[in-house]
Amino acid sequence: MRNVGVDELVARVLDGDTVALARAISWIEDEDRRGFALLDALYPRVGSAYRIGISGPPGAGKSTLVDALTERYLDSGSTIGIVAVDPTSPFTGGALLGDRVRMQRLGLRDGVFIRSMATRGGLGGLSRAAPSVAAAMDAFGLDYVILETVGVGQSELDIAEAADTTVIVLVPESGDSIQAMKAGLMEIGEIFVVNKADREGAETTVEEIRSMLALKRDADGWAPPVLLTRATTGEGIDELAEAIDAHRRFLAEAGLLEERRREHLKSQVRSIVVGALERDLLEKLGGDAGLDSAVGDVTEGHRSPYQIANDVLARIGKSRQDEGD
Amino acid sequence: MRNVGVDELVARVLDGDTVALARAISWIEDEDRRGFALLDALYPRVGSAYRIGISGPPGAGKSTLVDALTERYLDSGSTIGIVAVDPTSPFTGGALLGDRVRMQRLGLRDGVFIRSMATRGGLGGLSRAAPSVAAAMDAFGLDYVILETVGVGQSELDIAEAADTTVIVLVPESGDSIQAMKAGLMEIGEIFVVNKADREGAETTVEEIRSMLALKRDADGWAPPVLLTRATTGEGIDELAEAIDAHRRFLAEAGLLEERRREHLKSQVRSIVVGALERDLLEKLGGDAGLDSAVGDVTEGHRSPYQIANDVLARIGKSRQDEGD
Repeated sequence: MRNVGVDELVARVLDGDTVALARAISWIEDEDRRGFALLDALYPRVGSAYRIGISGPPGAGKSTLVDALTERYLDSGSTIGIVAVDPTSPFTGGALLGDRVRMQRLGLRDGVFIRSMATRGGLGGLSRAAPSVAAAMDAFGLDYVILETVGVGQSELDIAEAADTTVIVLVPESGDSIQAMKAGLMEIGEIFVVNKADREGAETTVEEIRSMLALKRDADGWAPPVLLTRATTGEGIDELAEAIDAHRRFLAEAGLLEERRREHLKSQVRSIVVGALERDLLEKLGGDAGLDSAVGDVTEGHRSPYQIANDVLARIGKSRQDEGD
Repeated sequence: MRNVGVDELVARVLDGDTVALARAISWIEDEDRRGFALLDALYPRVGSAYRIGISGPPGAGKSTLVDALTERYLDSGSTIGIVAVDPTSPFTGGALLGDRVRMQRLGLRDGVFIRSMATRGGLGGLSRAAPSVAAAMDAFGLDYVILETVGVGQSELDIAEAADTTVIVLVPESGDSIQAMKAGLMEIGEIFVVNKADREGAETTVEEIRSMLALKRDADGWAPPVLLTRATTGEGIDELAEAIDAHRRFLAEAGLLEERRREHLKSQVRSIVVGALERDLLEKLGGDAGLDSAVGDVTEGHRSPYQIANDVLARIGKSRQDEGD
């Protein structure tokens, strides 16, 4: 498959060719003209896959849980795409190795397609291309797309903005997990999983989460369940699949699925537009060097960053404050 | 102190009036015209305080460590400002209460000024105003400004972009802490602290971090130390203060401190400029409703987000792709 054109690649993806899908995803990740054209052509076929976001702190057993859920779906005859986002530092190779082991285990089964992606900037945050990669898997015809990411702040927000159902995975832990909840996880989880249920304090953690959730009022009326799982033995995985299905039915019956997807698309559009404007801005300033020179002799001048920002905006024809004109 | 003007408030802040400083910080947090004017007037006096960023996962004992370090500095005759950024959900009041207890304990001592701030959007990320709040404390004349935040992805990056020295606090923990390290902490820490040194596995955790750091090559030649502390008893706090001092001397002798502060200022300017452009964009589109209408009948049209973004950009007079013209 050398030098294939956009039209041919689209045709092959829609025909169920996994090699073509892998190539298409690479184009999308590159965010170049071919990737855009490809996505434009695939989009009329996007919308039938159900997107599940799975996030949580490091060490919660997310990958094992995703694998167990995937096997559960495979057993029931469904096909699954996994977009695994890993914020591994460039100088540690551990995750890459783990990923290979995993792909050998799961990837050999028919009906599953795994793609690993790096995070934006290495400090969390879903790659901007991740929702588009999910869209390509959707157009390809997979029944479920699972977006899996380590929960480090921005990633969770990003995943909630790309998934139909967001699952937060936690472990029984001395109050720390509850502290982590404060960091916004409560806001975005639609299903909570306490994994490693055999660990001491599992039931207590479930109760703590439930009492915190009792204080929360979901705007749409959904009451997030809190489940116990042991991903390594498969315990609780059926219940998780059922909870995801229940949330899916809830969204569909309340007419919220389309609305949610529309909101997600809006976020995506906004992020693309802002990204383009930022690039545009840097270009107008003459790149990083231009910003450097715009910042100027600041250590001598002792001007505040707002004064400098104002100068920069004036230079590119915008002004926030009157005095910048 | 009712209805004070900018000039008078500036004079009072520079005169060491803590009530005026509190008012000034509120103006800065509001990001309004008075806040900008105030900062502009204060900036010539900014630059003598040393800024320490302290971050790490929830439950690592950061606040206790910051308090212990603060007492250490107070005992040696220095003055300290603390900017504590807390990502607490709006529906949990725990942190606020803890904060009051803390301010009663520390805040009653002369020479310490504490200000708590919320995170941006509740999902981590330092408030955009935080570096400016630190600047006001600097101009006020405090010797140290400590920026303390729960490490949830974006916050760490933000703190590293505001601090002269970044300290990462971890706890002895079953490999999980090491996993968390992968999430970018290794990249930004200049000093690593394993707190709760009495816990099992403390020495092992220190060794694990050291071996990971051995793989890292600091571009500037600094070798990050890994320290053991027990913030509750004050154990290891002297060593931490010495390590911070050593890093400060390292930066000064290598001529890196000014360069680093210049880079941080650039990040701040960039963030202010991008924020202004985003607001400008939304305004041009007619607010969120405008973006809604720009996204249009997307569920019928099945257009890709890139196509829609292109339309939006064309509408505001910019075009990323030729076909958008």
